[in-house]
Amino acid sequence: MEGAAVDHLAHERSRAQFDVEAMKIAWAGSKHAVDVADRMARLVASDPVFKKDNRMMLGRKELFKNTLRKAAHAWKRINELRLTEEEASMLRIFVDEPGYVDLHWGMFVPAIKGQGTDEQQKKWLPLAYRMQIIGCYAQTELGHGSNVQGLETTATFDPKTDEFIIHSPTLTSSKWWPGGLGKISTHAVVYARLITDGKDHGINGFIVQLRSLDDHSPLPGIVVGDIGTKFGNGAYNTMDNGVLRFDHVRIPRNQMLMRVSQVTREGKFVQSDVPRQLLYGTMVYVRQTIVSDASKALSRAVCIAVRYSAVRRQFGSQDGSPETQVIDYKTQQSRLFPLLASAYAFRFVGEWLKWLYRDVTERLQANDFSTLPEAHACTAGLKSLTTSVTADGIEECRKLCGGHGYLCSSGLPELFAVYVPACTYEGDNVVLLLQVARFLMKTVSQLGSGKKPVGTTAYMGSVQHLLQSKCDVLTAEDWLKPSVILEAFEARAIRLAVNCAKNISKFPSQEEGFSELSADLVEVAIAHCQLIIVSKFIDKVKEDIQGHGVKELLQILCNVYALSLVHKHLGDFVSTGYITPRQGALANEQLRFLYAQVRPNAVALVDAFNYTDHYLGSILGRFDGNVYPKLYEEAWKDPLNDTVVPDGYHEYIRPLLKQKFTVSRM
Amino acid sequence: MEGAAVDHLAHERSRAQFDVEAMKIAWAGSKHAVDVADRMARLVASDPVFKKDNRMMLGRKELFKNTLRKAAHAWKRINELRLTEEEASMLRIFVDEPGYVDLHWGMFVPAIKGQGTDEQQKKWLPLAYRMQIIGCYAQTELGHGSNVQGLETTATFDPKTDEFIIHSPTLTSSKWWPGGLGKISTHAVVYARLITDGKDHGINGFIVQLRSLDDHSPLPGIVVGDIGTKFGNGAYNTMDNGVLRFDHVRIPRNQMLMRVSQVTREGKFVQSDVPRQLLYGTMVYVRQTIVSDASKALSRAVCIAVRYSAVRRQFGSQDGSPETQVIDYKTQQSRLFPLLASAYAFRFVGEWLKWLYRDVTERLQANDFSTLPEAHACTAGLKSLTTSVTADGIEECRKLCGGHGYLCSSGLPELFAVYVPACTYEGDNVVLLLQVARFLMKTVSQLGSGKKPVGTTAYMGSVQHLLQSKCDVLTAEDWLKPSVILEAFEARAIRLAVNCAKNISKFPSQEEGFSELSADLVEVAIAHCQLIIVSKFIDKVKEDIQGHGVKELLQILCNVYALSLVHKHLGDFVSTGYITPRQGALANEQLRFLYAQVRPNAVALVDAFNYTDHYLGSILGRFDGNVYPKLYEEAWKDPLNDTVVPDGYHEYIRPLLKQKFTVSRM
Repeated sequence: MEGAAVDHLAHERSRAQFDVEAMKIAWAGSKHAVDVADRMARLVASDPVFKKDNRMMLGRKELFKNTLRKAAHAWKRINELRLTEEEASMLRIFVDEPGYVDLHWGMFVPAIKGQGTDEQQKKWLPLAYRMQIIGCYAQTELGHGSNVQGLETTATFDPKTDEFIIHSPTLTSSKWWPGGLGKISTHAVVYARLITDGKDHGINGFIVQLRSLDDHSPLPGIVVGDIGTKFGNGAYNTMDNGVLRFDHVRIPRNQMLMRVSQVTREGKFVQSDVPRQLLYGTMVYVRQTIVSDASKALSRAVCIAVRYSAVRRQFGSQDGSPETQVIDYKTQQSRLFPLLASAYAFRFVGEWLKWLYRDVTERLQANDFSTLPEAHACTAGLKSLTTSVTADGIEECRKLCGGHGYLCSSGLPELFAVYVPACTYEGDNVVLLLQVARFLMKTVSQLGSGKKPVGTTAYMGSVQHLLQSKCDVLTAEDWLKPSVILEAFEARAIRLAVNCAKNISKFPSQEEGFSELSADLVEVAIAHCQLIIVSKFIDKVKEDIQGHGVKELLQILCNVYALSLVHKHLGDFVSTGYITPRQGALANEQLRFLYAQVRPNAVALVDAFNYTDHYLGSILGRFDGNVYPKLYEEAWKDPLNDTVVPDGYHEYIRPLLKQKFTVSRM
Repeated sequence: MEGAAVDHLAHERSRAQFDVEAMKIAWAGSKHAVDVADRMARLVASDPVFKKDNRMMLGRKELFKNTLRKAAHAWKRINELRLTEEEASMLRIFVDEPGYVDLHWGMFVPAIKGQGTDEQQKKWLPLAYRMQIIGCYAQTELGHGSNVQGLETTATFDPKTDEFIIHSPTLTSSKWWPGGLGKISTHAVVYARLITDGKDHGINGFIVQLRSLDDHSPLPGIVVGDIGTKFGNGAYNTMDNGVLRFDHVRIPRNQMLMRVSQVTREGKFVQSDVPRQLLYGTMVYVRQTIVSDASKALSRAVCIAVRYSAVRRQFGSQDGSPETQVIDYKTQQSRLFPLLASAYAFRFVGEWLKWLYRDVTERLQANDFSTLPEAHACTAGLKSLTTSVTADGIEECRKLCGGHGYLCSSGLPELFAVYVPACTYEGDNVVLLLQVARFLMKTVSQLGSGKKPVGTTAYMGSVQHLLQSKCDVLTAEDWLKPSVILEAFEARAIRLAVNCAKNISKFPSQEEGFSELSADLVEVAIAHCQLIIVSKFIDKVKEDIQGHGVKELLQILCNVYALSLVHKHLGDFVSTGYITPRQGALANEQLRFLYAQVRPNAVALVDAFNYTDHYLGSILGRFDGNVYPKLYEEAWKDPLNDTVVPDGYHEYIRPLLKQKFTVSRM
């Protein structure tokens, strides 16, 4: 793949019991997806402008300038090669560097598409599509993130001039965090409290020009800058997350995004007949892409850790034979293989979410809002669960690489630092789980009412059965049956939910109970979301999947995913009375057998992600496994090695050694 | 404390139900310890050379040079002020920047003290004490970390010249990671395989000069450099972790550290009558300091997260009243307060470990090795457990600070990046837990033999009682009794251990069983170590503790620590049959009551750590709570804000906006 002279992992690859090429298709979704990814990945990897292994040595300014260069070059190549939208978006993924374009394409354009009138779309989208303007999404403020309704920026309608006056009344109302805002965006969709005739109509979006299109200087009344260094060396420091303050900035009335609500020439606030629920559709879309990104990030970390665990040897040498590969240790397997299985699980649940989004969109267009609350809760929960597991999982993979995982050249520190904000943006993970829990409590309360739970909550319709049944596992093998696994997760989820609902009802008010028991409610939501992922993985394996051994391996991974969760959350399963301690022990036993089945396939299973060495950006995860010579080679590139005697020796080391200012204390 | 105009947290502080000054003493160990820390912390905070809030903006070379400057300045101040050893070491802690001096004082000097003969100590220690030489500890190699016995560097005795020839026979034998090695150390204690007359005598230590004392150039035969950038912006990039290769470097015979083994003039390898076990005493010492560091790091993160959670408000505003402080949310409390309790728990178990080290040392001097295996297992386990919880805990605190926790100015990203290697160095945490588990399995196997388990394993003597008894908790209040908590942890630990021992015995060999069940064994070791921490916390609270409300608050924290673990590991407690699901639910209920009791005291409990704003290095954790104005102020210091129009605009942004190379695709 990478044209290496020697493949140090060849033996590992020869042990695989399945068709890796077919698994690549199962992972990517289609042969076409594999091909596009392949072409785009190679295009990026072979272009010196997209080099990224020098990132950690660059200062903030150089780093940022380099990102601007890459973005401009990518845009040039996209146009020169007349890439399709699919190809262009794939190319951006493989450039693999956060930058202002992410917000332009991922938030600014969709906001106008989703919230702008036809007229507004006609005016602004062509400019945005050609990048004649560059936009960002200015929502979060210094004082308000999760609570969007608490935003303080105001947009006051002035009927005299037919304008809105955008203003930052307090320090905490400063826009804070929007990517692309700090140094680059010419425009922003700004969220502000709409005020007409002294009345507050809540948060609406406004298109505001920030900088001159001639010389890029901020327009009058606007103070804008970067909010400073963030976690990691490269990571999000390639992005100009920004701060923005308005001092009575005037914009024409027609720059309020008016698809859902309008302000008339007279200053009257009116709601259009476009249902507000449409906005939730966008949220489902954005969160679905985050789930898909989670499987990407986790699979990269797992790929690095699996390959390096097969290269690294430690202990266990007898009579001069090689030491044991660390991937052969059960302690390594029990931490690594559940993450490998999770990467696959998240990939498939992400694919399913794409379907769900299409389904919701079609229904919304037909004015059917019945599935929206369930779809919304489901995507919120899956966003939360997959990003939390991925963030922790990347760090776990780094630890699994031992000391060398701490070097930036392992790729893992930057992967972690660039990933973790996903736990906070687009909905703080705990806040989202509480939304899921609220929906579940409502669903539970309606169970007797004849209202049938839909979609991913359909299992709650069998509440009576699930509350009374017992797991019938007698042997470790029984745990391999999908029906056994599914019912265990269903029973655990509904029993936790019902218990919680009962406990809430003991409080003076529903709200007080909800607030007091919110830590338990988070656990209820997690149990529900894990069930969704398990059940979608089981569905996936039931599909017609091509290729020798592919289905079999996916079945194994599905079981690893489910049983590792049974082990991890044994307290839930046992204390709700569905499984016995003995059955829990059998699940754990089966897990060990499954690890043994994953082991010979582990390297091939991460090869199936089809990542180039450029994209992985890790010496430990190199395709050819040639880790040690390359680590050694890389070390010498550090700036500290520019000279043999370091800067500062003459001022701060030599005087010590020569006792120039020492008062002896001995 | 910090001379702030307004204390935004004054109301929080007025709510405290205990004497904060007395708690400072309980935390620090004595009034004297508080005073020394106070003086040293202020000394550092008031000296502009020790400024550290610019670290994330410096390139590697500048960052490194700045650390050299601080180290020289610290040495100058230590001598000028004639500080005691205690004061000097405290001052270094507050300088709070990894650097070559840590290894010089923390590893090089102790290695010579512990492994050198009297003659060697007399020769080398005065030079080291005066810093006329600077030393490091060169053990880890590119290919070997955990498996010290697998090191490949050789030290071959040449009887012709009475010298050792130090050599790196392979690439993987390159020394790799030692701090202070890359650019600074003039000397190293190098660990190498001793070979005399063709025979391999295993790993021994050798004092090797690396660089000229005149011009700092590497001596002939030595290749040495820095291994490159590591996790984080500042973090360990202030340290010159190094790579070192030897090409037949000769050193005199008397530079082998010969306290335990010697090579005679004739090349004969002889063991002295000094017991090898002494070396384990050093390990106990080093690991005890790591546990003490864990409580420091975790308490810093918790201090930041608690203060910011009291400042930050989100949601819950009614009729224009202020929003709810996020620390009032039960979800925040259930994540934050167990970490607050853990910081205290680790502090006290660390203090106890100091006693254990003194006890072991006295016994060793009296040739009593009986408690060494238990002390060794205990410190290994506590090192593992406290560092893992601390690493995860810092990241959890960062997440608890929401989006702003991702800014370097929050202090948390760097605290995490600089802390995480503690999970790997001085014994990988999983490897250490397996050592503990091995010791526990041995203890279990000897239970019937009349050999009485000692120290922290003494509870295993009551195995019969603990296997048969049942928890007698009937109400949530019953969980407040120390005896109830203690027996629950004892029963869980021994039942897991006994189950595991039984399962191992079903395998063809003990070794195979141990290897197959190693993931379970890790859990056995964790249960045992948690019991140690719980029991030492209970002991601490039984002591005579001065100050209004101090003992009461420590009792609450002790219960939070224990019951949050019962909840987290409910699967263990319930499936081993000691507690019922109902009792588990009561523990969880009690936990909520305890959180409510911690809440009004939370800010005061972190004030008791007595950290200066300089040491905390966090805008979110400022003593005065004046977070938002300072965040805003700090942002403008970023290099990207040096100019309004960023570098790269003319090359990479303007041409886009002006459509200079765009082939329109719309």
